[in-house]
Amino acid sequence: MSLFAWLVVKGLPLVPKPIVGRVAKRYVAGETLDAALATIRDLNREGAMATLDLLGEEVTQREKAEACTAEYERMLVAIAESGVDSNVSIKLTSLGLEIDEAFCRANVDRILATAKRLGNFVRIDMEDATTTDATLGIYRDLFAAHGNVGAVLQAYMRRTLADIAALPAAGANVRLCKGIYIEQRTIAFRDHETVRLNFLLALEKLLANGVYVGIATHDEHLVCGALGLLDRLRVPRERYEFQMLLGVDPELRRILLAGGHRLRVYVPYGVDWYPYSTRRLRENPEVAKHVIRAMLGGR
Amino acid sequence: MSLFAWLVVKGLPLVPKPIVGRVAKRYVAGETLDAALATIRDLNREGAMATLDLLGEEVTQREKAEACTAEYERMLVAIAESGVDSNVSIKLTSLGLEIDEAFCRANVDRILATAKRLGNFVRIDMEDATTTDATLGIYRDLFAAHGNVGAVLQAYMRRTLADIAALPAAGANVRLCKGIYIEQRTIAFRDHETVRLNFLLALEKLLANGVYVGIATHDEHLVCGALGLLDRLRVPRERYEFQMLLGVDPELRRILLAGGHRLRVYVPYGVDWYPYSTRRLRENPEVAKHVIRAMLGGR
Repeated sequence: MSLFAWLVVKGLPLVPKPIVGRVAKRYVAGETLDAALATIRDLNREGAMATLDLLGEEVTQREKAEACTAEYERMLVAIAESGVDSNVSIKLTSLGLEIDEAFCRANVDRILATAKRLGNFVRIDMEDATTTDATLGIYRDLFAAHGNVGAVLQAYMRRTLADIAALPAAGANVRLCKGIYIEQRTIAFRDHETVRLNFLLALEKLLANGVYVGIATHDEHLVCGALGLLDRLRVPRERYEFQMLLGVDPELRRILLAGGHRLRVYVPYGVDWYPYSTRRLRENPEVAKHVIRAMLGGR
Repeated sequence: MSLFAWLVVKGLPLVPKPIVGRVAKRYVAGETLDAALATIRDLNREGAMATLDLLGEEVTQREKAEACTAEYERMLVAIAESGVDSNVSIKLTSLGLEIDEAFCRANVDRILATAKRLGNFVRIDMEDATTTDATLGIYRDLFAAHGNVGAVLQAYMRRTLADIAALPAAGANVRLCKGIYIEQRTIAFRDHETVRLNFLLALEKLLANGVYVGIATHDEHLVCGALGLLDRLRVPRERYEFQMLLGVDPELRRILLAGGHRLRVYVPYGVDWYPYSTRRLRENPEVAKHVIRAMLGGR
């Protein structure tokens, strides 16, 4: 890792906001729902599906969580009216999880009911480890009640194989990703190769259990391993999808689409782009280097 | 990668021919069939089998392709008369693939008929990705007609698992290698670890399908993974062989032979050693360093 990359990773809160803002342009569809719908239309034309995410997390005021709930209902209506191919992804901390769990659950319930009425699906994103138990608990109850909701499991968490065993399998839809939060060694694998290994172990277990899996990765090695598992277990095309983030490796996205695989792009929008973009920056510090160069060069 | 290694990889056409010539001495048995047969006799004494290859590729004149065909028939006769343990490996572009596919097919047909009469076997080497479809098409047809012919699949190609599913399995003999040509990302995996992963996925699929596999690698990691698969799937010794190139890691060759595995060495000969040797050089730029040192040192 270069000194610069190290600084970005270790000193992220010190990266000036204008730089993160330039980074955000790559990973965020814009500040408005209209901008996000335009991005989704482009992705649909490419053959990709989308999942729409309103940026914002760790909300501590009830009104903000209620506004977020209302915005998600507005998003679901806009998706239905515009006819784009997209579901939505929600973060429980933006819907009041840190205020009051019952309040959060009621907000999610409203969103799920609206989605169900419109024939759509809601993914509950996974956040840092302090929220895992509550998130999976809410998911489990609402999946039993509504059905049109999915969870996310992170390959870096040591608990993931056990979570797969404990969660429902029949009719379930789980996104599997590596995980991007900074977690303690006691609960998470840290070594890159080990997280890859656990990703493939978890994927095999999910597929063997008949779960529909959103294989969320930009890591070619995991794409290769996933294709091998799908082939060996003879998983039909309609039983899985690949998932990638907006702005990350569009060439790999096109390769997978050309291979006939279902693929969904995570499309975030909104004014609250800072924490999301810093996580993307941590994942790929090289991007910051390009941004700084572009700013210094006046482009 | 050292600066020198980088120069060799990126600037291969610039490496002076005398240097490549010194490299060739390591990887090529000589310029004549007699020299090649002498090399094969040495290998047979060690317990290794051989596959004999006449250097030359991308032939654009019919007479050259016809001369190559005739030389392969002469090789098969010489193998039978000398009693050495060797089959032959052919490259379709040296037999006219780029001139006219039907002409090429007729040449291969002649070689296969001669080999059959002499109880021998012909491997169709795989070349760069522009030739894959034609090569597998010719292989499939001639395998159905003659039987005594095998194909090669490359682990770096994204299509390989699908090719295994589409090609015949019963009675088939496939060499699996990593692949050495420079291919686009859209069709080939590039990351070293990913190619290794796909090699093991492809090997498992071939073995599970009952294909006789030529496990062509000098990568200890893949040798270890292959031995694990052979053990787990209880593949008997006569259902596979390891394959290695002349001049590459003779110690590993002796290790595998001492372990009781069948092993075949690829023995190229002929005056047309330049393209073959530059590919070997790209694979192992360290060799060039030794050669240059030896030349400067007057040895």
